[in-house]
Amino acid sequence: MEAYEKTAALLLRIREKRPLIHQITNYVTANDCANITLAIGASPVMADDINEVKEITTASSALVINLGTLNEQKLEAMLAAGAMANEIGVPVVLDPVGVSATLFRLEAARRILQSIKLAVIRGNLAEIKALYGLKSKSRGVDSLEILGADAKEATEASFMARELAISLGASIAITGVVDLITDGKKLIQIANGNPMMARVTGTGCMCSSLIGAYLGAGGTGFDAAVAGVISMGVAGEMAYDRLNKAFQGSGSLKVYLLDAIYRLDSQDILERGKIYET
Amino acid sequence: MEAYEKTAALLLRIREKRPLIHQITNYVTANDCANITLAIGASPVMADDINEVKEITTASSALVINLGTLNEQKLEAMLAAGAMANEIGVPVVLDPVGVSATLFRLEAARRILQSIKLAVIRGNLAEIKALYGLKSKSRGVDSLEILGADAKEATEASFMARELAISLGASIAITGVVDLITDGKKLIQIANGNPMMARVTGTGCMCSSLIGAYLGAGGTGFDAAVAGVISMGVAGEMAYDRLNKAFQGSGSLKVYLLDAIYRLDSQDILERGKIYET
Amino acid sequence: MEAYEKTAALLLRIREKRPLIHQITNYVTANDCANITLAIGASPVMADDINEVKEITTASSALVINLGTLNEQKLEAMLAAGAMANEIGVPVVLDPVGVSATLFRLEAARRILQSIKLAVIRGNLAEIKALYGLKSKSRGVDSLEILGADAKEATEASFMARELAISLGASIAITGVVDLITDGKKLIQIANGNPMMARVTGTGCMCSSLIGAYLGAGGTGFDAAVAGVISMGVAGEMAYDRLNKAFQGSGSLKVYLLDAIYRLDSQDILERGKIYET
Repeated sequence: MEAYEKTAALLLRIREKRPLIHQITNYVTANDCANITLAIGASPVMADDINEVKEITTASSALVINLGTLNEQKLEAMLAAGAMANEIGVPVVLDPVGVSATLFRLEAARRILQSIKLAVIRGNLAEIKALYGLKSKSRGVDSLEILGADAKEATEASFMARELAISLGASIAITGVVDLITDGKKLIQIANGNPMMARVTGTGCMCSSLIGAYLGAGGTGFDAAVAGVISMGVAGEMAYDRLNKAFQGSGSLKVYLLDAIYRLDSQDILERGKIYET
Repeated sequence: MEAYEKTAALLLRIREKRPLIHQITNYVTANDCANITLAIGASPVMADDINEVKEITTASSALVINLGTLNEQKLEAMLAAGAMANEIGVPVVLDPVGVSATLFRLEAARRILQSIKLAVIRGNLAEIKALYGLKSKSRGVDSLEILGADAKEATEASFMARELAISLGASIAITGVVDLITDGKKLIQIANGNPMMARVTGTGCMCSSLIGAYLGAGGTGFDAAVAGVISMGVAGEMAYDRLNKAFQGSGSLKVYLLDAIYRLDSQDILERGKIYET
Repeated sequence: MEAYEKTAALLLRIREKRPLIHQITNYVTANDCANITLAIGASPVMADDINEVKEITTASSALVINLGTLNEQKLEAMLAAGAMANEIGVPVVLDPVGVSATLFRLEAARRILQSIKLAVIRGNLAEIKALYGLKSKSRGVDSLEILGADAKEATEASFMARELAISLGASIAITGVVDLITDGKKLIQIANGNPMMARVTGTGCMCSSLIGAYLGAGGTGFDAAVAGVISMGVAGEMAYDRLNKAFQGSGSLKVYLLDAIYRLDSQDILERGKIYET
């Protein structure tokens, strides 16, 4: 199937090209984001000061903006870096961490959506719903809860994600028990991963870093989002399988997750990938 | 004994309720604090900007304030979040990291003690002594050094902790070789843990996060402090026991510590707990 | 050979003295820097606020300044801490992270070089070249690329490092495939380490922390730089040897690196060290 082949090809391309990925991110998961970027084969640069972000973005192959531990200085740096990225054609990923939790982050997201053209937005369902609310106040999506295998929910989430993708001209990735990725036309669901991944902080942030790496290797927004989400899901399964459940827990899972991304190859994607096109 | 049963009950309660724990903390150990909060079964939210901390605290079941890598902006956010927590009845833990080291942190602690009602303060002996000095300048406690098994020291530390607890209306946890916890009336000593834990950064911060999780599950200040301290101590022992001392060191110890907290159950607490009521 | 003996002696001295190492560093690798400082046997204190850095430096045995995730506030704190360190004779290490990447960091480095007497500067070749450019605009070093085993490159890098060392009165450590350390007169090359270490974020920062620990134990700039670089290289090899290459990757490598530093002894240095004096 096409998605497997494209992911495999992009993975090779990351390792050949070692693209530089500029990440303006939170201090809780910055170390993990840098490490997963290195593990997949790309090169991270974490810089968030207004005095230097434009220069860093200019030298980079993709920009990842992550709203965790946001403050006003960091937001201004994101807006400056994003504008520069748009100007010179560097693709931008937005990870709207916690945007559903505070007005400050929602307002920050509004400013980012208004001024920066994004290639991909990756968030959980609550976060994507909050962004959707910014773009389409009138439409209620309150019935949507955590994205599961439930058919009706999946249909509603698909509808929302497609509308948001079209409205923003970006690919949308909603990650959860089942992940959903759309560019407004194509729509893919991915059923990889393991619930225990939610017990490690930053698995969402790390997934967004992987999407940045795939974008930096030349993938389209849609292909990079699919590749990043499936890589994270497959690696999470490989990590989980290695655990001795009698005494190993979330500490080991994180280490094994980075190991799995480091060793990830197209065979793993093909054998374990559960991609459903609809 | 009561303390074991209460800890076991609160541990179950964390896993049922998954309380949200707001943590305003330092960037050195924030990742570890988030991960241990997830490992025990609660849910962390790390946010430190004045523009959003009140909203985050309002949605949370406990607030943890940690003075590591403090700056003025973060202090203002702590004061705002703490005031909101007091207003709506969210319990607050203070971890006075390094308060004995600089006047800036001591002055910050003074402002926090003056304006925020705390449920628990957890620190090492030097830190608690510094806070005690703020409340009771005239009394010399210079003879107190690292809390060990020495009877005279333990008696003096007990006296100081009880006075501070009564003066602040908070439970005080002094962690060291032997841990001491008091609410001013009850006093418990805990003899778990392993000296090698001091070779991993943030074990104190992580212990405070666990206390926050137990508070968020509905424990009183005293019960949550006991539960957090004993969980950390027991997990430290379990982690240490797993080490192959020929070649494993502090890197593996941290991973195993998170594993142990993830797998911790009431059996571990009962079998390994060394609680002494006095 | 002298370098092995000095390193072994300083390693013992760290563990006896447990020197306090003040580190003003970036939020991406701060946790790793604190942990490696503890692993080698020293004690880290990470504080970056202008209100307290002078007090912290005063209580410390060495100061490490790291330009990652730099901003103006942090730079002012570095300058204040560095001035205090010079005043009271606390040795200072500079890690000019990314100084070749942005004008902001280059200008920050210029201010640091102008106002602070440094004991050691540790960086990769691009970073040291950028600093050399600040001191000696007229001399072209553009032919120098990543420091490898190539004889001509090594000769050119040696020349540059020696000139910079003399000009600044500091020891210079250029780390790469082969590491080069000079105080302007003596020059040593070290051929330890493993290329996979570059797939873990912060191995450079951690090496600078180790140099800080060796300085704090009383080593000269040159001896501390040699000891830090060889410790990191030997530990990297020990970590790499432990990996099961079928499924372990960069996640495990980082854990094992900390383990190796924790267990490092003079025997490891003697058996594995590859030091070449020229």
